[in-house]
Amino acid sequence: MSGAPVGIFDSGVGGLTVVREIQRQLPRESVVYFGDTARVPYGSKSPETVIRFSKELASFLLSKGVKMIVAACNTASSVSLPALEEFCPVPVIGVIEPGARAAAASTRNGIVGVIGTLGTISSGAYQNALRGIEGVKAVVAQPCPLLVPLVEEGWLDHEITTRVVEEYMKPLKSEGIDTLVLGCTHYPLLKPVFGRVLGPGVTLVDSAEAAAAAVARRLGEDVEGMPGERAPDYRFYVSDIPLKFQEIAQRFLGRSIPLVTQVELGEAR
Amino acid sequence: MSGAPVGIFDSGVGGLTVVREIQRQLPRESVVYFGDTARVPYGSKSPETVIRFSKELASFLLSKGVKMIVAACNTASSVSLPALEEFCPVPVIGVIEPGARAAAASTRNGIVGVIGTLGTISSGAYQNALRGIEGVKAVVAQPCPLLVPLVEEGWLDHEITTRVVEEYMKPLKSEGIDTLVLGCTHYPLLKPVFGRVLGPGVTLVDSAEAAAAAVARRLGEDVEGMPGERAPDYRFYVSDIPLKFQEIAQRFLGRSIPLVTQVELGEAR
Repeated sequence: MSGAPVGIFDSGVGGLTVVREIQRQLPRESVVYFGDTARVPYGSKSPETVIRFSKELASFLLSKGVKMIVAACNTASSVSLPALEEFCPVPVIGVIEPGARAAAASTRNGIVGVIGTLGTISSGAYQNALRGIEGVKAVVAQPCPLLVPLVEEGWLDHEITTRVVEEYMKPLKSEGIDTLVLGCTHYPLLKPVFGRVLGPGVTLVDSAEAAAAAVARRLGEDVEGMPGERAPDYRFYVSDIPLKFQEIAQRFLGRSIPLVTQVELGEAR
Repeated sequence: MSGAPVGIFDSGVGGLTVVREIQRQLPRESVVYFGDTARVPYGSKSPETVIRFSKELASFLLSKGVKMIVAACNTASSVSLPALEEFCPVPVIGVIEPGARAAAASTRNGIVGVIGTLGTISSGAYQNALRGIEGVKAVVAQPCPLLVPLVEEGWLDHEITTRVVEEYMKPLKSEGIDTLVLGCTHYPLLKPVFGRVLGPGVTLVDSAEAAAAAVARRLGEDVEGMPGERAPDYRFYVSDIPLKFQEIAQRFLGRSIPLVTQVELGEAR
């Protein structure tokens, strides 16, 4: 299995930040990525539907012979992980547990904030994971449904984005958080805005970085890393090639995607 | 066929504004509605995928014995209408042609603005329909991808929404439009904001109203209207019952949905 690729799925292109981190932290590993761009976003959908979609994506990755599966999507990680672990014969890694652990390691005053889609925050997954870790005294959670559309519109430096972030950060600031978990793959692109609004006293935890670190740990344990000096292979699949796809994908991957294959997962009965 | 219901589909809950208008303009007609809430939004997806989804929704409505099909979704109307007309044995009505006709009837200076999702505006459907009508001299089109999320977040009166609308309206104002087509079912909920930003000199054309009027015209022509005094029947189907569903649906329908049935359209092969 050591020569097998790591499978990564996401509701869309946001999970490419996890691919970028794996490439940086584990440059020898091959990757198969699936982005469910035909049904994105997952953040406002019901848990039942997100679980059904996640299983379809995991099945596709398993058919490509992956040695582990990373649910890069925070919403999918929040609600689908138990179902995926039961369903998959390979290890499944979500972004919640790694993100929560990184936040707990960072906080000094024990007051941790977490932001995400409505689905992620409603599930309580981050809140539960954080509350189980020593040193975390309080968790302040805030859904931020407008941030994904703002990032996809490309308004990363726009004054309106700053105003929206200020609005969402109000309850987190008033509770005195010193650490904020960016619980959505889109949010790291707004790090400069969060930094300006929250000030230098608040540490930002990137769930993509934490997830890649968790993959690296797992490769040292029960899953074999990629041997030798062979060049890694990256394969990208999506369920739709939407408008502005390359432009938006590049924002997350940090480079253009040379080749992307479209696969229709959802079919009428 | 006169006793058969009118079928209406949309990518989500926005098309409920068309249901509301049909209820107002044609109180005797029964309606079957399908909202593809598991795969919403369509606005940023590729034309091929939107056509595939639209055909699935039309098939479902046809299985319920509808006498005509209304594509309430502007994005679906923009790209799928020829495919649907070929595919469906009953008349198909979109929102583009009715909206364009209403705008042409309203404009005095011949300069018409149109706003919509990226998919609707990129398709050029409104622009082509408007340019074919006498009295229209110029069409100014502007995609507004942030407005749907702002409406769904419920920030209808929020200062940030006004700022976003101001930003999107800049090119339309500088071109001197006197009529604006609200080319997305979500936008009529922002009519007060558009009114404030554009001033009383600009007429707002609601595509839901125009589509309902087109249905009424068609019922006087080749499709029979509902006879007698029988109470109309409304049936609502969705592909997902997402978070905050009733709250958001109520905003569009103007009342709560008493009974909604979930149907899984997209299935793994």
